[in-house]
Amino acid sequence: MNQIFTVTGMTCGHCEKAVTRALQEVDPQAKVQIDRTQNNVQVESTASREALAQAITEEGYAVAG
Amino acid sequence: MNQIFTVTGMTCGHCEKAVTRALQEVDPQAKVQIDRTQNNVQVESTASREALAQAITEEGYAVAG
Repeated sequence: MNQIFTVTGMTCGHCEKAVTRALQEVDPQAKVQIDRTQNNVQVESTASREALAQAITEEGYAVAG
Repeated sequence: MNQIFTVTGMTCGHCEKAVTRALQEVDPQAKVQIDRTQNNVQVESTASREALAQAITEEGYAVAG
């Protein structure tokens, strides 16, 4: 299932990696695509939206939608 | 020997960690203090200034002085 999040606070490539890693801790099979210039995070995953959003938040970034 | 570098491009805490790690690959005993809001990197190390500056540059940040 393709899930799209609007995530603020990603300033650099390290931030993208940190978010990707956090999402893949929830679902190691997750496919993650991030465009930080658009605050866009796309996750192809069977995990719940809530679990994925929580992982992003716990990593220190804000999920705006 | 305390060495001070002006480093641009550090946007977040991950960047500070990446620079610290790069410096400590040159000198594992290096003490590193970074204030990214001031572009300031202080390194207490016996390694040469050239080697430390090169490590920062290779990590993808610019040494301005």
